[in-house]
Amino acid sequence: VRCGIPEVVLGEGKDRAHLIEIILMMVRKTGRCIATRVPEDVSDEIRNVAAEEGFSCDYHPAARALVAYRLPAPALHGGVVGILTAGTSDIRVAEEARIIAEEMGCRVITAYDVGAAGIHRLFPALRQMQGADAYIVAAGREGTLPAVVAGLVSRPVIGVPVSTGYGYMGQGEAALGSMLQSCSVIAVVNIDAGFTAGAFAAQIARGAQNGED
Amino acid sequence: VRCGIPEVVLGEGKDRAHLIEIILMMVRKTGRCIATRVPEDVSDEIRNVAAEEGFSCDYHPAARALVAYRLPAPALHGGVVGILTAGTSDIRVAEEARIIAEEMGCRVITAYDVGAAGIHRLFPALRQMQGADAYIVAAGREGTLPAVVAGLVSRPVIGVPVSTGYGYMGQGEAALGSMLQSCSVIAVVNIDAGFTAGAFAAQIARGAQNGED
Amino acid sequence: VRCGIPEVVLGEGKDRAHLIEIILMMVRKTGRCIATRVPEDVSDEIRNVAAEEGFSCDYHPAARALVAYRLPAPALHGGVVGILTAGTSDIRVAEEARIIAEEMGCRVITAYDVGAAGIHRLFPALRQMQGADAYIVAAGREGTLPAVVAGLVSRPVIGVPVSTGYGYMGQGEAALGSMLQSCSVIAVVNIDAGFTAGAFAAQIARGAQNGED
Amino acid sequence: VRCGIPEVVLGEGKDRAHLIEIILMMVRKTGRCIATRVPEDVSDEIRNVAAEEGFSCDYHPAARALVAYRLPAPALHGGVVGILTAGTSDIRVAEEARIIAEEMGCRVITAYDVGAAGIHRLFPALRQMQGADAYIVAAGREGTLPAVVAGLVSRPVIGVPVSTGYGYMGQGEAALGSMLQSCSVIAVVNIDAGFTAGAFAAQIARGAQNGED
Amino acid sequence: VRCGIPEVVLGEGKDRAHLIEIILMMVRKTGRCIATRVPEDVSDEIRNVAAEEGFSCDYHPAARALVAYRLPAPALHGGVVGILTAGTSDIRVAEEARIIAEEMGCRVITAYDVGAAGIHRLFPALRQMQGADAYIVAAGREGTLPAVVAGLVSRPVIGVPVSTGYGYMGQGEAALGSMLQSCSVIAVVNIDAGFTAGAFAAQIARGAQNGED
Amino acid sequence: VRCGIPEVVLGEGKDRAHLIEIILMMVRKTGRCIATRVPEDVSDEIRNVAAEEGFSCDYHPAARALVAYRLPAPALHGGVVGILTAGTSDIRVAEEARIIAEEMGCRVITAYDVGAAGIHRLFPALRQMQGADAYIVAAGREGTLPAVVAGLVSRPVIGVPVSTGYGYMGQGEAALGSMLQSCSVIAVVNIDAGFTAGAFAAQIARGAQNGED
Amino acid sequence: VRCGIPEVVLGEGKDRAHLIEIILMMVRKTGRCIATRVPEDVSDEIRNVAAEEGFSCDYHPAARALVAYRLPAPALHGGVVGILTAGTSDIRVAEEARIIAEEMGCRVITAYDVGAAGIHRLFPALRQMQGADAYIVAAGREGTLPAVVAGLVSRPVIGVPVSTGYGYMGQGEAALGSMLQSCSVIAVVNIDAGFTAGAFAAQIARGAQNGED
Amino acid sequence: VRCGIPEVVLGEGKDRAHLIEIILMMVRKTGRCIATRVPEDVSDEIRNVAAEEGFSCDYHPAARALVAYRLPAPALHGGVVGILTAGTSDIRVAEEARIIAEEMGCRVITAYDVGAAGIHRLFPALRQMQGADAYIVAAGREGTLPAVVAGLVSRPVIGVPVSTGYGYMGQGEAALGSMLQSCSVIAVVNIDAGFTAGAFAAQIARGAQNGED
Ligand SMILES: Nc1ncnc2c1ncn2[C@@H]1O[C@H](COP(=O)(O)O)[C@@H](O)[C@H]1O
Ligand SMILES: Nc1ncnc2c1ncn2[C@@H]1O[C@H](COP(=O)(O)O)[C@@H](O)[C@H]1O
Ligand SMILES: Nc1ncnc2c1ncn2[C@@H]1O[C@H](COP(=O)(O)O)[C@@H](O)[C@H]1O
Ligand SMILES: Nc1ncnc2c1ncn2[C@@H]1O[C@H](COP(=O)(O)O)[C@@H](O)[C@H]1O
Ligand SMILES: [Mg+2]
Ligand SMILES: [Mg+2]
Ligand SMILES: [Mg+2]
Ligand SMILES: [Mg+2]
Ligand SMILES: [Mg+2]
Ligand SMILES: [Mg+2]
Ligand SMILES: [Mg+2]
Ligand SMILES: [Mg+2]
Repeated sequence: VRCGIPEVVLGEGKDRAHLIEIILMMVRKTGRCIATRVPEDVSDEIRNVAAEEGFSCDYHPAARALVAYRLPAPALHGGVVGILTAGTSDIRVAEEARIIAEEMGCRVITAYDVGAAGIHRLFPALRQMQGADAYIVAAGREGTLPAVVAGLVSRPVIGVPVSTGYGYMGQGEAALGSMLQSCSVIAVVNIDAGFTAGAFAAQIARGAQNGED
Repeated sequence: VRCGIPEVVLGEGKDRAHLIEIILMMVRKTGRCIATRVPEDVSDEIRNVAAEEGFSCDYHPAARALVAYRLPAPALHGGVVGILTAGTSDIRVAEEARIIAEEMGCRVITAYDVGAAGIHRLFPALRQMQGADAYIVAAGREGTLPAVVAGLVSRPVIGVPVSTGYGYMGQGEAALGSMLQSCSVIAVVNIDAGFTAGAFAAQIARGAQNGED
Repeated sequence: VRCGIPEVVLGEGKDRAHLIEIILMMVRKTGRCIATRVPEDVSDEIRNVAAEEGFSCDYHPAARALVAYRLPAPALHGGVVGILTAGTSDIRVAEEARIIAEEMGCRVITAYDVGAAGIHRLFPALRQMQGADAYIVAAGREGTLPAVVAGLVSRPVIGVPVSTGYGYMGQGEAALGSMLQSCSVIAVVNIDAGFTAGAFAAQIARGAQNGED
Repeated sequence: VRCGIPEVVLGEGKDRAHLIEIILMMVRKTGRCIATRVPEDVSDEIRNVAAEEGFSCDYHPAARALVAYRLPAPALHGGVVGILTAGTSDIRVAEEARIIAEEMGCRVITAYDVGAAGIHRLFPALRQMQGADAYIVAAGREGTLPAVVAGLVSRPVIGVPVSTGYGYMGQGEAALGSMLQSCSVIAVVNIDAGFTAGAFAAQIARGAQNGED
Repeated sequence: VRCGIPEVVLGEGKDRAHLIEIILMMVRKTGRCIATRVPEDVSDEIRNVAAEEGFSCDYHPAARALVAYRLPAPALHGGVVGILTAGTSDIRVAEEARIIAEEMGCRVITAYDVGAAGIHRLFPALRQMQGADAYIVAAGREGTLPAVVAGLVSRPVIGVPVSTGYGYMGQGEAALGSMLQSCSVIAVVNIDAGFTAGAFAAQIARGAQNGED
Repeated sequence: VRCGIPEVVLGEGKDRAHLIEIILMMVRKTGRCIATRVPEDVSDEIRNVAAEEGFSCDYHPAARALVAYRLPAPALHGGVVGILTAGTSDIRVAEEARIIAEEMGCRVITAYDVGAAGIHRLFPALRQMQGADAYIVAAGREGTLPAVVAGLVSRPVIGVPVSTGYGYMGQGEAALGSMLQSCSVIAVVNIDAGFTAGAFAAQIARGAQNGED
Repeated sequence: VRCGIPEVVLGEGKDRAHLIEIILMMVRKTGRCIATRVPEDVSDEIRNVAAEEGFSCDYHPAARALVAYRLPAPALHGGVVGILTAGTSDIRVAEEARIIAEEMGCRVITAYDVGAAGIHRLFPALRQMQGADAYIVAAGREGTLPAVVAGLVSRPVIGVPVSTGYGYMGQGEAALGSMLQSCSVIAVVNIDAGFTAGAFAAQIARGAQNGED
Repeated sequence: VRCGIPEVVLGEGKDRAHLIEIILMMVRKTGRCIATRVPEDVSDEIRNVAAEEGFSCDYHPAARALVAYRLPAPALHGGVVGILTAGTSDIRVAEEARIIAEEMGCRVITAYDVGAAGIHRLFPALRQMQGADAYIVAAGREGTLPAVVAGLVSRPVIGVPVSTGYGYMGQGEAALGSMLQSCSVIAVVNIDAGFTAGAFAAQIARGAQNGED
């Protein structure tokens, strides 16, 4: 735990055997291991070992995230994070954020696909999230939903550009650019960086509950 | 007149003497000359010659555009163009569009500074433009106003990215990117290209009035 | 239907099961569903369900577009759109535009491969399109055909940059850049954005037929 | 006041007369006006009017920010923001953030020039800021100070890339890139965007004091 | 003389005194000196020395090029270069090319402003250049004139992108990109590189006259 | 034949059936067809038809180019093109150039892998090419060989950047940039554009043999 | 051997048969051949030949590097190179550097995964490397470890940006940019360029042992 | 002194008064102050104070660098650095490197303008530098001189890209790219970063003289 943020293993860019070894080592040593961008078959392997060694293993396919644990999840501290996505392709990134925020003791309320074609669902969604301490809004293509949300709520809004789209600036660059240039007050994280958004929002939510930590 | 679009002189990048010469040659030969991005002192010089030679000269400082003419403006054909801007820095570009559209026989209705801080003025503005045949929406920074307008009207919306902003993609690139990536149906022109937007919208508006041209 | 533009499902970036579900839900609920960038095997699956449930399903392989419907296509309103391509690799994008424009009630006239090596076919093609209310011109590599067409017709021309080419700016960037910088009056949409071009042109063509909509 | 964030006038890109007019209109109507990137001579003019009309005007030269007011500053709500800079060239951006955060009722603690050559001052500076609810860290060139701070504190850290440096990616791009790619948990705002960082941090700090707002 | 190409001094980026010294040294030593991108006042200074020391000095203001010489220009070898520009802003670059080609013994035929608005002058211009051994075509903005010319002549066409234009890719990048992506056969040189184009065309023209050199 | 350049079919980006159809149509109609970037199995298919219909088909695997013909190759006109590559990965591009140049009646002399590790072979190679009318030099990574050659010969040198390399600017961009910025006189074509280089050099070589064409 | 650096074969971008041929030719002729980015099955083939012909072949899977040799490795000259990596994904690049440095007679000390999550291992690692003549530090994502190391040691530090990461500047660009902009004194090589870093560091280490070479 | 590198004040981006204050504070406190990118009039001011307070002040106009000192320069340790430039515009950067290297106790041998037009001076220059422990080579435009030098010497070569040139990649990017992509073994520093190159080379040269430091 670095500054109250759980150590998280990034599955991408590691070879299969090495990744499995790191995950197992961490769960054995610390009683809990979160890993992101993990291929499904790696999670199968971990689950087998989990069965043998008597620990648990949850795999979240949308986020391609895995939580292996012998120790229970951290207690809820009362902080609340609202997570929204503009479309359905942004859900994988939002789910990565959700898992981290929950692992950091937050209650998370989600509302997916509430931009563009689903914009009529935005107001009900925000009403349902009233009382949230921070918002995460994931959006690809032109990436305008975070600014819209920031215009409607008074708590901090974190924009996550998503690499959906095609053509000019279609790998999340237009979304990143429009979030950074926004007239609304939003902060951003890297393209597709659900982990960072989730941990950052959880830091805010935790701080809203207690004076020190 | 190329395809019903008046020949327009681009003042930028020409040296002073040469620019004056071209403008005078055109007004003398064709009875009317429009020039964009013209320094104020060039317009003063043209006005002096106009007084001597008995033609007229209007200078539009916001757009830095000049119309010198002996012949009257083209008759109104009934087509209507609505022009909106997100902020006040976008007005120079919107005005360039307005002048061209008027020179092409359109009635133009404008509403400036109706995005961001002035967003409460957007609905009344659009009501006032009801019946427009095409819309031009100029916006800098994150450039989202065109998409918003396109979600509210059923006529074509042309987005003009404007080079206001600073930092990453701050010279109109974020606006261009977000317009091109927009989930709404909009077409775009180059950054700051008021001329192109005005002429394109006027082509649409003219076509909406008569079967052939 | 948003502002007279049919809701269209973007197949790209959605997983197979989810995509099928969305398409079926829409055709069942609204009686008609258009989807673009749909893999052929997804269309096979939809066709099977269509046979069972008694609706129709057309698949356009060049455009990778699918139209599933119980309700008939909208009536023709009399508006006409001309669609041209520079080469043969641009046809997939042009076909996407055609399907949308037809779904919006336009008559569409096409002429493909009339740039570069087929430039001698351009004049006959344009003659055949006389009376069109708007033009769509798709072109890759240096992307100059839209400007050429705009110099020959007096109706609006929409340029669609296509991601064919190789090397420097070879994924449609050179085409996008040359269209935006063009001295001719053209508006552009995103690289490969057949859908946007088709819907935008249809808005123009529809407006040319009736005062209001 | 939009979502608890004061309306702020951006001086850059507006012409002199227009800027003065907007500032005066706002202070007369709302009793308080904050403007950033304001040339010194504009502030002189405002001060003259202030003297005549009986309101106050503070000019902060480092930030080139102006606060004109008849009404007192908002009461402190108890929230605390820590602001650090890596070098001395980052101070102008940090000061812009400070003024906004204070206008939003925060107590602000600053420590400037504590990166690179002044890194030995970092630990004492952080000790002095203990109890801060959020941190803003402004850094140019390689922009690593925000990540260093985030590794030492458990409250949210907002990175502000600054456009100092020269050569490759020397206008803040390297700093932006390294903050977005950071293994530490930080959120970022646009290059030089002191205003956004200040308002965002103030939202966090305010939320840490009271359940609702 | 490097490979039959005269040594040319690039005035840009050298300080005034140093530039004058280099030019004088070369003309004194070799009897002839060509310099490009030379400020007018430097040429005045050289002319004064020329008067004293008894050599000649021609200054070409459009190209900002200077030729100082005691020795006569090289004899014409019979090779011919045709130089065209799309607009009037491209002339400064074309003139730089012309001077070098003439210094390398070519006869040069020019036709300026024969693209875009002046396209009706293109056919007469090409007729007048019949028999040219190579063509140089300078064009800014979308840069399509070189490809048009290459489709009409059977001799090599060299495209020179020019840094006129504004907005996206407006400093010659769109022109460079469209020339490199062209379906026509053209070779290109750097943006604004009149010198390189002139020397390269002269190499071709010289080779067309004699078997060896 | 456009301006003395044979029509060449670009295999890349066309689907298999369509590509075969175009090639067969052209060889049947004109007696000769050149196609580049053709997959090997397409050439097999063409060869089968060739056997049946009694025409010939040569496939050049390095260049992935195919020549199908009933008519003989054009007669040699005496012009000579020298083609060099820096490394072995550049050969595929050089071979594409060679085939076009030969199809345009040139004698071609090649010397591959004479840069970097093979630089000691450069001088003998150039000696062997003495009398060439034009040079093509293909190079990836830092792309400096064309400038080196241009410093040693007095005939025109065409640089072809090749997309070998990795990391920063590793897809031919560094080579393109260094060729365009070169102090030596060279003209360039697009990255990997062997076809353009070959046709351009052949135009020069042909012109060096005869006054008119 | 060029300037004391062994000729190294780059396996990437060469076809299988050609690569094998080059490696065999070199080991037969010079008694030793190093090749990088070599697929495992190529090394198998070389090993077979090695068995037949009586030479040796070592394959380093992490670096995908192969050393085939009949002659022994060069004698140690006493120079020492320290190699560190920030994460585990950087090891492949570090290993490439190690092999080259050892082939150039250096003793190499490595410490991998000592940045980010493993930063507590940095100090012990550096202590263990005391007396090194040069350091190589490989790092992806934000690439800050080289600057940290350079602040702690007085010998030259070479930064190697690694193409791990995702999103904006995620292919090593952020790391490259932050190393070039660093306030610490470091020199850099291309993204993933282990070979260059290893050879450069070995040149330094060798020079630290003997006055001339 | 950080790791044996003197603290150097970067004059760029600091305001006049602040810069003077920093320089004076450092010379008073430490007895010696080096500052780069210092405007001439700042050095005049420092010289006046120097006269009053009895310390010395040298200003190097080419490098715009200033050394103010009461203490003598560090003793020569015997290490030698060779500095070369391709052209005359690169001298300002080379001089910055020279001053730092001398301040770090090196003997420096320079040879300027030995690339491109002055390439015949390269061999004599290198002969004169025989025995150097490290080389710095500054070059703009295509930036190939460092690779050429690296092919001729066996000591480490540091390339410094210089921001001379125009057009595509003309602000040092082509030079940076070609140095990073070079087949020769060179390390690079940021565009125009004379300071970094000088300090890095001095670290090497110092290390070549003594086992530890
Ligand atoms: N999906 C993710 N996106 C960004 N950072 C991550 C992600 N997952 C893990 N990390 C961080 O990346 C680092 C993991 O590095 P590694 O040692 O390569 O596993 C840690 O600092 C994690 O906190
Ligand atoms: N503000 C403008 N933006 C874009 N194009 C313009 C503008 N003003 C004029 N033009 C067009 O640019 C060309 C003017 O070229 P020139 O011959 O240089 O005056 C004509 O095709 C005009 O229609
Ligand atoms: N390898 C190649 N590189 C560049 N252009 C080519 C190549 N092969 C053919 N071409 C040109 O590309 C166009 C072929 O277009 P298409 O009609 O799609 O076959 C023609 O103008 C050819 O001359
Ligand atoms: N010309 C220069 N280029 C790069 N870095 C420099 C230069 N001059 C000084 N520096 C470094 O930049 C930092 C100076 O920062 P500052 O505290 O802003 O003066 C120190 O780390 C210096 O070593
Ligand atoms: Mg808000
Ligand atoms: Mg609409
Ligand atoms: Mg037209
Ligand atoms: Mg922290
Ligand atoms: Mg031709
Ligand atoms: Mg030559
Ligand atoms: Mg150090
Ligand atoms: Mg060497």
